[in-house]
Parts: sequence; C-alpha cells; structure tokens
Amino acid sequence: MSIIAGAWAPNVIWHLRAGPRRFSELRSDIPPISAKVLSQRLKELEGRGVLSRAVQPTTPPSVAYALTVLGHELVPALDAIVAVGHKLKAERR
Amino acid sequence: MSIIAGAWAPNVIWHLRAGPRRFSELRSDIPPISAKVLSQRLKELEGRGVLSRAVQPTTPPSVAYALTVLGHELVPALDAIVAVGHKLKAERR
Repeated sequence: MSIIAGAWAPNVIWHLRAGPRRFSELRSDIPPISAKVLSQRLKELEGRGVLSRAVQPTTPPSVAYALTVLGHELVPALDAIVAVGHKLKAERR
Repeated sequence: MSIIAGAWAPNVIWHLRAGPRRFSELRSDIPPISAKVLSQRLKELEGRGVLSRAVQPTTPPSVAYALTVLGHELVPALDAIVAVGHKLKAERR
C-alpha cells in the first residue's frame, strides 16, 4: 500500500492517467496541493517507479511527468476508488 | 479520491477486508500508526460511510469496526494497488 502513500499521491497518479503533465498543470489539477508537497510527492513517486520525468524540447526546455508502464497499472484501481466515492456521496445526499 | 484520503486510510480499509477488527487489533496490524491517527482515520472513514462501529457483546462490551457494503467495494481496487506495489518492488531489486 506504500506505493500510494502520502497526501495527494493518488490524485497525482490519477491526473497523469491521460498523459504527461507539467508541474504547473498538476498544481492547477489539484488546487489544494502546495508546491512543496507536490514536488515531494513527485520525487517519492519517481523513486517508487510509478512515474518518470522527461525534459520537453520546448524553448526554454520544460519538464513533464508521465506514468511508467507499472504506474499506469494503478489507474483502473484508482478509477474504481473514485467510482465508489461517487456512490458513497450519492448515498449521503 | 477523497474517500481514501489521509495517511494510513487505505491500510485501515485493507485490514478490515476479512472482517471486523478492534482498535487494538488494527494498531497491531499497522505498527507505525499512532493511536491518535488511527482514531482520527476511523472517525473520518465512518463519516464517509466506508466503515461502521458495532458494540460487541463481550464482557466488558468492546467496539469493533467493520467495512460497510460500499466500503467492501474498495477492497478489489486496494488489492490491485498492493499487487502493483509488489511488482514495482520486485523490479527495483
């Protein structure tokens, strides 16, 4: 379970499911997350092999984060968790 | 994703997959968790409808925590996450 440990880690993985995202894009995807926590989560998730960093050939060059093959294997499970979350919220209305 | 938010929340849900557990049992299931954090997670997860508390007819009476029907729907997803975690660890050896 430690693979998704850390506040917002599941959210970071989930927002990378559709393709590489830059730091600023991830910050706007997850409004409550601070820059410090986001960079910590990105470092940890990279260290666990869930995502990787790639320098983009932009001017000036920029860095984007993308899920690894195994990182992508987490997406169906996170989708299932989001679906249960919606059911629970619907039940509580 | 907020349904599993909070440090150790996925671990608490996972350790309830086989049936009700008492507070002391959950603490030994998840050694690093403090009593304060565990009771906070249990309150939050109960509030989200993921688990419920039941007084056990023991002497003296004791409280056990069990997943709700929707809480149980999270287990396959968490199992999948644990499986990916093992693959990643195996890859990194």
